[in-house]
Amino acid sequence: MKADGKKTTSLWVENKNQINIIDQTKLPFKTKIINLKNISDFSEAITKMKVRGAPLIGVTAAFGLALAIKQNPKKNNIERAYQKLLRTRPTAINLKWALDEVKNKVLKYNENIRAEKAINIAKDIRKRDIESCKKIGLHGFKIIEKIFKRKKKVINILTHCNAGWLAAVDWGTAIAPIYMAKRNKIPVHIWVDETRPRNQGALLTAWELEQEKIPYTIIVDNAGGYLMQEGKVDLCIVGSDRTAINGDVCNKIGTYLKAISAYQNKIPFFVALPTSTIDPKSKSGKDIPIEERDPRELSHFKSLNKSKFTENKLYFNCKNISNPAFDITPSKFVTKLITEKGILDSNKESIKRIIKG
Amino acid sequence: MKADGKKTTSLWVENKNQINIIDQTKLPFKTKIINLKNISDFSEAITKMKVRGAPLIGVTAAFGLALAIKQNPKKNNIERAYQKLLRTRPTAINLKWALDEVKNKVLKYNENIRAEKAINIAKDIRKRDIESCKKIGLHGFKIIEKIFKRKKKVINILTHCNAGWLAAVDWGTAIAPIYMAKRNKIPVHIWVDETRPRNQGALLTAWELEQEKIPYTIIVDNAGGYLMQEGKVDLCIVGSDRTAINGDVCNKIGTYLKAISAYQNKIPFFVALPTSTIDPKSKSGKDIPIEERDPRELSHFKSLNKSKFTENKLYFNCKNISNPAFDITPSKFVTKLITEKGILDSNKESIKRIIKG
Repeated sequence: MKADGKKTTSLWVENKNQINIIDQTKLPFKTKIINLKNISDFSEAITKMKVRGAPLIGVTAAFGLALAIKQNPKKNNIERAYQKLLRTRPTAINLKWALDEVKNKVLKYNENIRAEKAINIAKDIRKRDIESCKKIGLHGFKIIEKIFKRKKKVINILTHCNAGWLAAVDWGTAIAPIYMAKRNKIPVHIWVDETRPRNQGALLTAWELEQEKIPYTIIVDNAGGYLMQEGKVDLCIVGSDRTAINGDVCNKIGTYLKAISAYQNKIPFFVALPTSTIDPKSKSGKDIPIEERDPRELSHFKSLNKSKFTENKLYFNCKNISNPAFDITPSKFVTKLITEKGILDSNKESIKRIIKG
Repeated sequence: MKADGKKTTSLWVENKNQINIIDQTKLPFKTKIINLKNISDFSEAITKMKVRGAPLIGVTAAFGLALAIKQNPKKNNIERAYQKLLRTRPTAINLKWALDEVKNKVLKYNENIRAEKAINIAKDIRKRDIESCKKIGLHGFKIIEKIFKRKKKVINILTHCNAGWLAAVDWGTAIAPIYMAKRNKIPVHIWVDETRPRNQGALLTAWELEQEKIPYTIIVDNAGGYLMQEGKVDLCIVGSDRTAINGDVCNKIGTYLKAISAYQNKIPFFVALPTSTIDPKSKSGKDIPIEERDPRELSHFKSLNKSKFTENKLYFNCKNISNPAFDITPSKFVTKLITEKGILDSNKESIKRIIKG
């Protein structure tokens, strides 16, 4: 997709082994590219959310582990780097999935060729992520197209947080069908949830849509229910940080409120995800740990002031704050899951079939 | 209630006719008292939300009209001032109720005594508001007490926006029962919704509770659903800006999302309101106009920097923003209404009975 008019992705390899990312904590104020040089750079990039979004966290971790293997291909070093990267974020399962992909495959090889194998596996994970997201876009597009053919008007889509290309490598998950709709000239308008506390909707999703000239309106997270009651939302599409085998969806805090509101107002609620987001070990949402993040995400925020970032205090009292980062949307409120393997029902049977096949 | 350790109210009369308010746009950073001298001061105080909250808007408007009558007691001047004040906010019905109280009563008198009558009527509205809120507190307290007697643990109460004493003259509506619980030594803990876009929960409600030493935790508006799913909310209490005859409740944007979440999780959801908030002309929520406010409430915010207020940009792109200020919670999601006249069912029969009696 486009950033400042130029085609780009959220993470890419230059000169064979140099891994670049866009520092998403500076977006949309600045498009700052950083080069991740060692495992601490990688784990900090994930922890401080310079990269975020389940698919991108996975891809970044894979490259981080590959770099660690290049520096020392011994098994105990691989294990140490694996654990360090795994600890960066507890909820997004793609992190573990991607780390397992690299570790398990690499350990089959002799130490002297592990470095080369590891970087190739990471590159392959990146490539597959792009392909998956593109397929999610194509499958999801059919849903939008169907609704458009019936309603014959601008289709209003509500999304929460950022599940666009910035959350993956390219295309994104929830936003991929929207990009496909745009390319296929189906008129859409996106309600962008601000998404407190980090405002990824207002900052990242709005910026992505702006770059691709897709009409959108930013709203506070509180407003979605009202818009649904007023008939101003035709469908919702969100991403997922981890999906349980029974179809329960873990996603950015506040997703659940939108899902139950869509349910109450008979509006379809879709979750777009690569199947790598499905956790075979999570039988239901109850098995998914919810990350509690820094209270300063609520009480402070960064603002660009004469090309310098300043941290401003939003609240008077900065103690007594709770900041759970995700919630669980029970499968009954999910209309369908949009995956790279097709559209499926959010239940155990469908999900088991797709991850086996 | 207390502000900076001293007993105070949100609006009071000094030296017979001088009307003082606390400028709530500066709270909690500064307790700035301003004196409203003419009708423009009054209408600006309401429009710019130096005073806010349905009951307080009504009381302020009453004093504004009284002041206008003092300056010129002729009928057409009264009508002009009435209209000017009525236009300040479209949703809160107490505004119209209080203005009608003053206008209709005053017009029965000769011009030469209208000024004195008007200020007395306004003072009486203020006094009745305090009494009503105190009664709401006592009735609501019984609900909390009942839950406490059953659960025998700290009672977790979620509230949205600010419906404390700052939203009324004293005691408040939704927070009044909480103040009564505190006085009666029932252990409570309040989940304070941040309440975007103006953050009245994080700024005003948290400050009120801090002053009265009531335990609380600030959360983003997105988090309430998750807390309810986790069993961390025992009941919800919110205020109302206008209540329809059928029990539909208009309140701060986002209230609806909390109400349906409470409903899904079988958590009682109470609305506390003086009966002056009930609009006999609103048959249902559909009849209530929803105010659309300045997009800058989302994209910008004020922060205190070395004792100076600065306006900071929160978003990159400040166009494409929609800012509806209220939503409608259908009566089916409201467990009970807590009024100064007692606790009632949120349906037409109960409401008609109470406003007639």
